[in-house]
Amino acid sequence: MTDLYPSRKSEHPAITERKDPVVYSSMTEQGPLRADQLTYFEDHGYLFLEKFFNESDVSMMREELSRVLNNSKVSTDKRVIREPDSDDVRSVFAVHEHDDYFKSLSKDRRLVDMRNQLLGSDVYIHQSRINLKPGFNGKEFYWHSDFETWHVEDGMPRMRAVSCSITLTENTPFNGPLMLIPGSHRYFVSCVGKTPEANYEMSLRKQELGVPDHDSLTKLAAQGGIAAPTGPAGSVLLFDCNIMHGSNSNISPAPRSNVFFVYNSVKNTLVSPFSGQKPRPSYIAAREKVTENGNG
Amino acid sequence: MTDLYPSRKSEHPAITERKDPVVYSSMTEQGPLRADQLTYFEDHGYLFLEKFFNESDVSMMREELSRVLNNSKVSTDKRVIREPDSDDVRSVFAVHEHDDYFKSLSKDRRLVDMRNQLLGSDVYIHQSRINLKPGFNGKEFYWHSDFETWHVEDGMPRMRAVSCSITLTENTPFNGPLMLIPGSHRYFVSCVGKTPEANYEMSLRKQELGVPDHDSLTKLAAQGGIAAPTGPAGSVLLFDCNIMHGSNSNISPAPRSNVFFVYNSVKNTLVSPFSGQKPRPSYIAAREKVTENGNG
Repeated sequence: MTDLYPSRKSEHPAITERKDPVVYSSMTEQGPLRADQLTYFEDHGYLFLEKFFNESDVSMMREELSRVLNNSKVSTDKRVIREPDSDDVRSVFAVHEHDDYFKSLSKDRRLVDMRNQLLGSDVYIHQSRINLKPGFNGKEFYWHSDFETWHVEDGMPRMRAVSCSITLTENTPFNGPLMLIPGSHRYFVSCVGKTPEANYEMSLRKQELGVPDHDSLTKLAAQGGIAAPTGPAGSVLLFDCNIMHGSNSNISPAPRSNVFFVYNSVKNTLVSPFSGQKPRPSYIAAREKVTENGNG
Repeated sequence: MTDLYPSRKSEHPAITERKDPVVYSSMTEQGPLRADQLTYFEDHGYLFLEKFFNESDVSMMREELSRVLNNSKVSTDKRVIREPDSDDVRSVFAVHEHDDYFKSLSKDRRLVDMRNQLLGSDVYIHQSRINLKPGFNGKEFYWHSDFETWHVEDGMPRMRAVSCSITLTENTPFNGPLMLIPGSHRYFVSCVGKTPEANYEMSLRKQELGVPDHDSLTKLAAQGGIAAPTGPAGSVLLFDCNIMHGSNSNISPAPRSNVFFVYNSVKNTLVSPFSGQKPRPSYIAAREKVTENGNG
């Protein structure tokens, strides 16, 4: 298959234009998102829905979060990823598979309808995880496009996936909220370097490949600025698979946690990784039985 | 001399009340700061003066900043402090001594009058520095009270000093702005541990002692919240020597730099460090000829 978005193949970074639509269904089609919300998503690459879930949902999510966190503390499960310089849990992958509560959350009817509307097709879950950024010493996530990694390391051919992040704690300007570069989803930044085998074993703890260069980031931020939607627990951030995003560290006492589902179109299932290397494990990138998971 | 604020002497942290005034002159006394500004400072422990300097001042400050930065890049001067994991310049100390421009800036009439008003006496410069938090990889500064260090390591007896930070680049929510815990200046957090000899050689790069405990920080932040004043270059932040403050990392493309003068009352000159150890060098804590520097 032709590689429309080559990355980690050259010694020089490059910015090219996106070759795929952002919103796949017609703006006039019936759906939970209004036309102005679809237009906002198309232009900015994200949409923030404050207090999407109500307080009783949020209180249950918090309980479930503590349960998962407690179970993960001493776990040797590979799906539990720890901080680069400590044993603190940073992420728990594939919660839609191994956890009943988060499985049912991923199938929430309103979420299903929104992502089908954005992607213009049925979808399946490409990846899910809980991200825990603890208070006092939560570490930063450097700028990246998720698609760049999913394309190179997982073989996702086109930009037809959307991420849905549900905030499980309040996101404030002080606890390292997700920062996005609005409009950056319209460009693909080819990164330099070559992906080594089993890169994910380190990269999930600290990203060192697929890192966009300073010049490209400066250009994109000069054009689109930076946005960091903040709000109470239970808010939902929908963002395009290719938008440049990252977050600063968190020294505030308040943890910043969210659950994160990535929906990919059933018309965009994975091929062989464009790095030419072995695919990553299925708890990081779903590769089999994806149609059975259709509609999440 | 009795140690009114013992720290790094016990295995248990403790919060005690401040034993000194915050504003030393009468609220009704004539001065550049209005009574409501003095009250704000007394209650919150800081005061932000947006666009205190005009654009032509700011443009000169920027030139002078690049000059100092360029000179520091290859300098072996001890006053140039580098990042913990690279040779990037993090701080340049004592700019009021070795740099004519910043020396004259430290004597700006309006600044002099404000700090005299806050401290109710003549003052001298205890410490000055430029802090450079570069774009893309600017590192965090963990929560601390400056006074805790100045008391333990430099022998500053009482809380009668004020810091004046002049922003040299725009401070935004995204480039790791200074965060303060309003009201925390009214409490002293005794830290655990013991100060080793020449601790400053490492601590200026990365603070590992004089670190407040999580419980104390949580209590103070629950009571006062967190504030992170942001604004254009040329703004001034006045803050009490004992207010708890820190900053997150900076992955944004925009650097966050400021010049920082600490004014101490001539009635509060240094004694022997309360750690019982040797004083730090004079470029970190002025100890001699301080009356000649009176009025900055």
